Amino acid sequence: MSDRATVLMARIDELAKFSEEPHRLVRRSLTPALQQANDLVASWMLAAGMTVRQDAVGNLVGTYAGVAGASKTLILGSHLDSVRDAGKYDGPLGVLAALACVERLHEEGQRLPFAVEVISFVDEEGLRFRTSYLGSSALAGSFNPSWLDYQDEQGVVLADALRRFGGDPADIASCRRNSDDLLGYCEVHIEQGPVLEAEDLPVGVVDGIAGQDRLTVEFTGVAGHAGTVPMARRHDALCAAAELVLAVERTGQATDGLVATMGQIAAEPGASNVIPGHVTLSLDVRHRDDAVRTRAVAALHDEATAIAQRRGVHLVWTSMQSTPAVPCSPQLIGRLAHAIEELGFKVQHLTSGAGHDAVPMASLTDAAMLFVRCKGGISHNPAESVRLDDVNVSLETLYRFVLGMQRDMAL
Amino acid sequence: MSDRATVLMARIDELAKFSEEPHRLVRRSLTPALQQANDLVASWMLAAGMTVRQDAVGNLVGTYAGVAGASKTLILGSHLDSVRDAGKYDGPLGVLAALACVERLHEEGQRLPFAVEVISFVDEEGLRFRTSYLGSSALAGSFNPSWLDYQDEQGVVLADALRRFGGDPADIASCRRNSDDLLGYCEVHIEQGPVLEAEDLPVGVVDGIAGQDRLTVEFTGVAGHAGTVPMARRHDALCAAAELVLAVERTGQATDGLVATMGQIAAEPGASNVIPGHVTLSLDVRHRDDAVRTRAVAALHDEATAIAQRRGVHLVWTSMQSTPAVPCSPQLIGRLAHAIEELGFKVQHLTSGAGHDAVPMASLTDAAMLFVRCKGGISHNPAESVRLDDVNVSLETLYRFVLGMQRDMAL
Repeated sequence: MSDRATVLMARIDELAKFSEEPHRLVRRSLTPALQQANDLVASWMLAAGMTVRQDAVGNLVGTYAGVAGASKTLILGSHLDSVRDAGKYDGPLGVLAALACVERLHEEGQRLPFAVEVISFVDEEGLRFRTSYLGSSALAGSFNPSWLDYQDEQGVVLADALRRFGGDPADIASCRRNSDDLLGYCEVHIEQGPVLEAEDLPVGVVDGIAGQDRLTVEFTGVAGHAGTVPMARRHDALCAAAELVLAVERTGQATDGLVATMGQIAAEPGASNVIPGHVTLSLDVRHRDDAVRTRAVAALHDEATAIAQRRGVHLVWTSMQSTPAVPCSPQLIGRLAHAIEELGFKVQHLTSGAGHDAVPMASLTDAAMLFVRCKGGISHNPAESVRLDDVNVSLETLYRFVLGMQRDMAL
Repeated sequence: MSDRATVLMARIDELAKFSEEPHRLVRRSLTPALQQANDLVASWMLAAGMTVRQDAVGNLVGTYAGVAGASKTLILGSHLDSVRDAGKYDGPLGVLAALACVERLHEEGQRLPFAVEVISFVDEEGLRFRTSYLGSSALAGSFNPSWLDYQDEQGVVLADALRRFGGDPADIASCRRNSDDLLGYCEVHIEQGPVLEAEDLPVGVVDGIAGQDRLTVEFTGVAGHAGTVPMARRHDALCAAAELVLAVERTGQATDGLVATMGQIAAEPGASNVIPGHVTLSLDVRHRDDAVRTRAVAALHDEATAIAQRRGVHLVWTSMQSTPAVPCSPQLIGRLAHAIEELGFKVQHLTSGAGHDAVPMASLTDAAMLFVRCKGGISHNPAESVRLDDVNVSLETLYRFVLGMQRDMAL
């Protein structure tokens, strides 16, 4: 077992102490708590022979220079901001795994034919300003200037928070990278799902980040007295909704890799002795293949329409958001898979159902992700837990991935 | 068309003006608004040759004396209290139909071999103190003294409200009637359901008031990320709930006269991107036959247990209330049916799915109810609507019912 995994786990615990609240982990972007975490990581970066800077949007960027004349850069990273009442690993594991890789290169005195950057992205979770990927969007050139006017719950404007954090809202464009200068992006992250645990594997390769449809579904029937309206004369909106809930489940089960979820439901008027006249549900459909997802949503719309017609209820089907899938780079996937095979593990391919900084980064350069098994698939929860030996495998995989890139360049 | 129906409809409109709120009908028990309504009805009772009193629990009682020596009493009545944002007919129709019957007897100079009492019961809806049948319970001897301590939303204690209304909390027992003195009880009421409208009939005879089970059903599965937990590894509490909602509907449809309703549903944590881990539902099951209802509830419990086992979720099944069915008197049912036949209408038998003052009255004496068609089956709603010609039929039916009782006594 490498000492590096042990060191990483101790660092995870150290970072977890930087929180906006005393008894639980809350580390929103552009806060003093995030600054403390970044400062500590920056000190480790410096000790690993890196030059360190903070860019205009607040990303912490450590650079481990390549051999003289090296013109390209490989970016490794993740984020240190968190959700409310967070676990310790979502984000920090990826930053610290990237750091550990550079530390190893530094200790071994290795210089690569490319620079390695370790980035702590400033805002992946979007908790504070309800934004997505502030930091990585700035690199990819997709930062929307209107975001600077967003306010947090306390009324603090994003631009002001960024200035206080040492950033420069007027200079976001300076963060933008040129694709030609980059070799790619790789992010280590906890799986946040149960597949690796079920397969008894320490790590898995992400093939892509699923596209997502978010919809609102409403059924309007006829409310009525639960005691006086005979069953045959009802137009019960909840019964229509129940049929759709099961159709959504069946559709998800019938298609490999599809996940379809109704997470919210509200029945009106909502009294025990009144037949529900109106039900609203949320629908979330994700798949790595946009065509598969789009077909599934269309099939569910057909099914909901048929349910509504059969039951004499009215359907309103509203698309709230539709995000295409982001494929990972086949080259980088292959390199990660090769490294895992070298370590003697089966290569488990996964689709990321959750979003990551790899989404905007994939629009800029080749992107890849390595998922690490987490206990029970639990994430966004203090119960988040990762095994030391799995962290070790992830570090070894990432190191071999980086060296493999060097080999490929030498060919 | 009788003028009496026209007068009744005008009186319904007059009574509807007595409300606790300016723009909608709210007339809770023991309020000045109810006092105003009772006072107006009392004036009409006096004009119809009745003696009028208010008993200790606040019921308004008008008595139309029988012939000299008549020892028995037939009670007709309903209630003038209302739900919030009520319709005009639920309650007042029955009080005014009873009054109209006595007015006709009075105008025709008829004295019967029994007294006729018209009662406006003080609290049928239970809106103010969340009680049931305050007034009729006092007649039946089932008034629970602990109710006197109940408070309304403003913290007013029932006993104090009763004293202010002119009642006497210490003398509730004086309201109690002796079964031997009574011939029976008959109540005219809107159907609050769609059957008479569908059958195109003005009135129907109530065979009994359904028994009712009220339950709370909880499924506990495993919450998880809607994007990262594959379908095959889910324990979605909402999918379990959806299966039960449809099983409840099927069970209701499969059994003649059974109504089974899930009116409330709540899913936790209730986010669009989180698989529901916990769902709570209400279940309401009613039937005229207690054995049928009990079997249905047991079958649904079995079905819920099977759903929970198959899905690996946890079931909690909690009975909140179980009320036996109340049969109406076969003799009085027969008299109402005979009167309807005389008027040339088909006799439609109905089970009342809603509770009425006839429930406690049935424990005291023979009870019967005549239902009147209401538009769309809509009740507890300002849209409550009753046709003039249907009211006319109900008045004629009630009058013939009362005269029929006289004939039977003479035999």
